[in-house]
Amino acid sequence: MFYRYKDSTALSPKAAPGKVWHLSAASIDASPCHSTLTQWSAQIQTGRLWDACTLSQQSMWMGFLAHMYEPAVSGKGRKVRGRRGGDHGYRHRGFGHPSVTLTWSLALAGGGGISCVLQDGEVFEKAGVNVSVVSGFLSEEAARQMRSRGKSLKAKDGKLPFCAMGVSSVIHPKNPHVPTMHFNYRYFEIEEADGTKQWWFGGGTDLTPTYLNEEDAVHFHKTLKEACDKHDLKLYPKYKKWCDDYFYIKHRGERRGIGGIFFDDVDSPSKEEVFQFVKSCAKAVVPCYIPIVKKHCHDSFTPEEKLWQQLRRGRYVEFNLVYDRGTKFGLLTPGSRIESILMSLPLTARWEYMHNPPESSKEAEMLEVLRNPKDWVH
Amino acid sequence: MFYRYKDSTALSPKAAPGKVWHLSAASIDASPCHSTLTQWSAQIQTGRLWDACTLSQQSMWMGFLAHMYEPAVSGKGRKVRGRRGGDHGYRHRGFGHPSVTLTWSLALAGGGGISCVLQDGEVFEKAGVNVSVVSGFLSEEAARQMRSRGKSLKAKDGKLPFCAMGVSSVIHPKNPHVPTMHFNYRYFEIEEADGTKQWWFGGGTDLTPTYLNEEDAVHFHKTLKEACDKHDLKLYPKYKKWCDDYFYIKHRGERRGIGGIFFDDVDSPSKEEVFQFVKSCAKAVVPCYIPIVKKHCHDSFTPEEKLWQQLRRGRYVEFNLVYDRGTKFGLLTPGSRIESILMSLPLTARWEYMHNPPESSKEAEMLEVLRNPKDWVH
Repeated sequence: MFYRYKDSTALSPKAAPGKVWHLSAASIDASPCHSTLTQWSAQIQTGRLWDACTLSQQSMWMGFLAHMYEPAVSGKGRKVRGRRGGDHGYRHRGFGHPSVTLTWSLALAGGGGISCVLQDGEVFEKAGVNVSVVSGFLSEEAARQMRSRGKSLKAKDGKLPFCAMGVSSVIHPKNPHVPTMHFNYRYFEIEEADGTKQWWFGGGTDLTPTYLNEEDAVHFHKTLKEACDKHDLKLYPKYKKWCDDYFYIKHRGERRGIGGIFFDDVDSPSKEEVFQFVKSCAKAVVPCYIPIVKKHCHDSFTPEEKLWQQLRRGRYVEFNLVYDRGTKFGLLTPGSRIESILMSLPLTARWEYMHNPPESSKEAEMLEVLRNPKDWVH
Repeated sequence: MFYRYKDSTALSPKAAPGKVWHLSAASIDASPCHSTLTQWSAQIQTGRLWDACTLSQQSMWMGFLAHMYEPAVSGKGRKVRGRRGGDHGYRHRGFGHPSVTLTWSLALAGGGGISCVLQDGEVFEKAGVNVSVVSGFLSEEAARQMRSRGKSLKAKDGKLPFCAMGVSSVIHPKNPHVPTMHFNYRYFEIEEADGTKQWWFGGGTDLTPTYLNEEDAVHFHKTLKEACDKHDLKLYPKYKKWCDDYFYIKHRGERRGIGGIFFDDVDSPSKEEVFQFVKSCAKAVVPCYIPIVKKHCHDSFTPEEKLWQQLRRGRYVEFNLVYDRGTKFGLLTPGSRIESILMSLPLTARWEYMHNPPESSKEAEMLEVLRNPKDWVH
């Protein structure tokens, strides 16, 4: 069960600024993809995330869920004041914990979506989830990019209707011994001139530690490999390499982190089989990551370790703003919701000129793996 | 007087990693452009910058200058250990002040240059100066970009030899009441197939305050206007607007700061006249900025004001990584020196989800001017 705006004709970002939007719970589409996509997000969030958190954070996550699902659960319309295509949301300070900022908002531009960000928590410095369902016509630039990836798209009167939906999350913890985690799973559909539909899935899960912990790296990759292996033994090696290649900060000669899996344009063997595979990946997010959070969230750390974390956050920003396909595409797409797109940026980051960690230091050990990715499971 | 590497044939980034380079003082070129370009940098740096600093910073700036000019002044060769095309420099911790990091380095890749960065000073959080002279052949991408700006470039055997030189600086102060300042002045020359040379100047000076101070804004723009007006009354209005248009963070609908002047591809009325104009602009840097630094560097500030500064720094990073022509060009050019290119990034930055300052606050007043640039002098 998801919800959409009653007046779907008035979703353009410039339509009726300042208008009060009336929302109602309704399933967008009866297809299994839509409803299961929402299930993932529910699983991931109601999942076991809060086991890892302190009591105050648990209440905060519960608040988060209550806010996210309240309109759908209550089945009643909810008033949201829309401004500039939905750039306006609600902000709750002190939810569960005096220092925690929990912000959620509904994106009205070009579709429906929910962004929810936890800021300045006890365990997490900044953690966000985006769930979005967007439909419309591909921009020329988007169509060009897709064609450059080998797609033949036959437009009707120059128009290509599309429908895209996805769930994504970036979690930046406070403790430098707890890695940053990112995942994104998405489904894309395009209708061609003759009415045939092209569809594909994309996504991935990857880990960005500040310091290398081999045991954690093995656990993370092993869990992903198990999720992939259930479907095809060829998938993990292929998508592990794709991940190392994708999250590459070319100007630094470094990967963003220790990788995971990444794939795009996956449309075979069949929609149902790919969907089962993507569900396995999404279900692996919590067992991949949460044991690592639990294990390290009370580790002690030095100011020097915090500083190295901040420098690595700077690299995270560089990757996301300079290379990330989704971010670049979003920034260049008129009417897109900037706050949701840039939700992935860390709360704080740092750039020092000519920072070179000493040889054989823990920092140099981390860099070595970012420069020369390793195989963590065989 | 500038200096270059004796062995100019071995300047490619991959040549002889780990080799010890021998430098010697030598003028690169007898043309007035080269020598006067070096003069600007000397003026700007020996200039009156340290008047604004505390005693410990004065000694630091003097150390900076001593290090920068020592090879040229002594006239003697100096050993610099080159690694990966010059990514290795010297780092002096505690120069003049225990907390100050002063790093300088020589860029060997594709030309000569000096980068010097002051970090964690008492007044300046991060302040850098780049002086560079680069020559080689235009990459296809660079030639394409230049043609798209209306230049007809006739290549000989597909090659376009170029020579570029410039001085640039970004200064991020600690106190949120002292604005960030950036300037860059550069000269570009391209040799076409028939031997004719195309040349142009570009550059600008702009101010990025955290809080609006109208008196400072007027002083900054008035000083720039006076520098322009000596040459042509049409220049300031034209280049002021160009600056507002250039430093535009499109996805935010905001300018990076309150502008200043910006121009590019300027090749008329004559080389000598443009050069005189550019010299006036460069000479205006110190009187533009230093009185503002002096006036506010001891202002008291609150943690909330520091936080707003950090959020604005995040926007600075967004502009530089997503839009800045020079940064983008540098990041995509193989062999370019990343540390010099990204020197412009602040030491620290922050991103909060859905940060919207309250109406009528000082922060909202600043945003208003970034969204709707004002004319500060008439």
